[in-house]
Amino acid sequence: MTPFVRPQIAAMSAYVPGEQPREETITKLNTNENPYPCSPQVIEAITRACRNGLSRYPDPTASAFRAAASQLLGVPADWLLCGNGSDELLTIVTRALVDSGDCIRYPTPSYVLYRTLAEIQGADRQEVSFGSDWTLGKDFVAPSDRLRLVFLANPNSPSGTMIPPARVLEIAEALPCPLLVDEAYVDFADKNCIALVARCEKIIVTRSMSKSYSLAGLRFGYLVAQPHLIAQFNKVKDSYNCDALSIAGATAAISDQSWLDETRRRIIATRQRLAQGIQQLGFRTTPSQANFVWNTHPDVGVQPLYGRLKEQGYLVRYMHYPRWDEGLRISVGTEEQIDRVLALLEDAVRR
Amino acid sequence: MTPFVRPQIAAMSAYVPGEQPREETITKLNTNENPYPCSPQVIEAITRACRNGLSRYPDPTASAFRAAASQLLGVPADWLLCGNGSDELLTIVTRALVDSGDCIRYPTPSYVLYRTLAEIQGADRQEVSFGSDWTLGKDFVAPSDRLRLVFLANPNSPSGTMIPPARVLEIAEALPCPLLVDEAYVDFADKNCIALVARCEKIIVTRSMSKSYSLAGLRFGYLVAQPHLIAQFNKVKDSYNCDALSIAGATAAISDQSWLDETRRRIIATRQRLAQGIQQLGFRTTPSQANFVWNTHPDVGVQPLYGRLKEQGYLVRYMHYPRWDEGLRISVGTEEQIDRVLALLEDAVRR
Repeated sequence: MTPFVRPQIAAMSAYVPGEQPREETITKLNTNENPYPCSPQVIEAITRACRNGLSRYPDPTASAFRAAASQLLGVPADWLLCGNGSDELLTIVTRALVDSGDCIRYPTPSYVLYRTLAEIQGADRQEVSFGSDWTLGKDFVAPSDRLRLVFLANPNSPSGTMIPPARVLEIAEALPCPLLVDEAYVDFADKNCIALVARCEKIIVTRSMSKSYSLAGLRFGYLVAQPHLIAQFNKVKDSYNCDALSIAGATAAISDQSWLDETRRRIIATRQRLAQGIQQLGFRTTPSQANFVWNTHPDVGVQPLYGRLKEQGYLVRYMHYPRWDEGLRISVGTEEQIDRVLALLEDAVRR
Repeated sequence: MTPFVRPQIAAMSAYVPGEQPREETITKLNTNENPYPCSPQVIEAITRACRNGLSRYPDPTASAFRAAASQLLGVPADWLLCGNGSDELLTIVTRALVDSGDCIRYPTPSYVLYRTLAEIQGADRQEVSFGSDWTLGKDFVAPSDRLRLVFLANPNSPSGTMIPPARVLEIAEALPCPLLVDEAYVDFADKNCIALVARCEKIIVTRSMSKSYSLAGLRFGYLVAQPHLIAQFNKVKDSYNCDALSIAGATAAISDQSWLDETRRRIIATRQRLAQGIQQLGFRTTPSQANFVWNTHPDVGVQPLYGRLKEQGYLVRYMHYPRWDEGLRISVGTEEQIDRVLALLEDAVRR
């Protein structure tokens, strides 16, 4: 019995985030965190902000971050909205655009939060399957009554694949409603969709500082959209949604592009090493544009491999989708971590 | 024209937070911030958390804070939910309990966010006026179809007055739905409603670390409710709604009760000094249980006084309510700040 609660909330199962063991002995390669510490300038900026005190409310619109991001991205500051992680931005957009009884569309398999957001908002869900090559066909742009929002993780998880920007633009133009392009992993990709926002008012891009900037603990993301939409999203967000320390830290992070370039270079090199190594063990990998690799195996059941790795202190993500088989999504750690995972897998596969 | 946006969002005016000038020369007595720096243990805890790195996702349920708060409040840890400021907790509760077309009730004048939350959720608003003595009559518990949530700021703003816990319990028992008691200012009051949560499952209490703990910049609040409600609210919140630094800082803050006792003592003493001083200038003040005082004047228009103070670098809050007259809500600053405000007001009133 759940008195007082909206029926659709009572009926929901809670979103379960990836395992977050607190033990120091576990190497986490399951939630796509960055294995390297953030830019030292982030810590300096946070320390400075602490020295200025925390007694005052923070800047409601994170102007300092928007100024820095504006310059970097070549987008005016009033095209930017900052959030307490990009998850909060997905929530804000959903609440601004989607009424109870409206529809939300998203591809599967993809980020499971899209489903949760639709359920909380009381929206109908249109789940469109990726093709077996992780492309999206005509279904994804099919006309539909009350379709108000479409989500697209690009690069996608668990596949690490990307829909090319030209195709994203085609999709947006064919849709009757905004298309939120979730670029949480895009700093590890060759291309991105920021430039499309000016070309099509239906395109909204969200970004996260969690993965590429190594700031999952800080909770900071940003969104790019045309300013008339930003003005509406601002009505929905909590007044002081970003705290003073995350604003200071994220501003320092985005201002240190040489740190990002170096970290990205290392992670992409290790991603390549992981993909090649695991293919040599008979796995099939999907070419990844993100900081993880999706691996299936034609002959070996992979769930026991997940268990074996976990026993040895390496946590990866086991996923099973009826149409896409079961697989291991392995976050790109340090070179040493990946070499160790490959050695353990080799041992397990050869048994 | 606002394409794509829900009609009720398009029709809303955005919530405008109190003025937050960034100039160092302005003394802010307008948004009830704490004039003293937070406990040094907070800064130490944040520095320590930075040293551990920010690359990992934070604890989704802020267990360390809940353990500390549980001990202090005498409430089990699974009766507690942490939020990115208590504003976020109000948002979570609204989304969990209130459907589009349902009703939300709250007293006026009070915290204006209640109205905004109802508008965003597409709920009907039942605004019940306080009596001229800031009490609540039978209207506040009147039966009503689809009434799903009632807000009560206690102490209230701008009045600083409090509905006694025994009366709060009566109200909750008479209502058909949960009563959210917003205790943002309660650390400056003689009593609170935490003990009522165990007695009545309809009572939900929210608290803020912004005012009493001097952490407005950190964004951290908590909620106390019976565990079956907490479980539902957990479904609605973003997975990682509190960041690693705010969890560390808030945990240190609530663990340093000697800092809170001393700060509270100083603020209550200065509140008394402010009330007495301003009464001597012919103002009427409402006895305050918060860290601000509400002042009206029977003979003098107070809006020009607000302007005069602002010119001199002291920002207070001017408010005008048809049935409660116009007044100045003055946050309790340091003794020196309040003495200066009193001197400036004396000068202005005597002109």
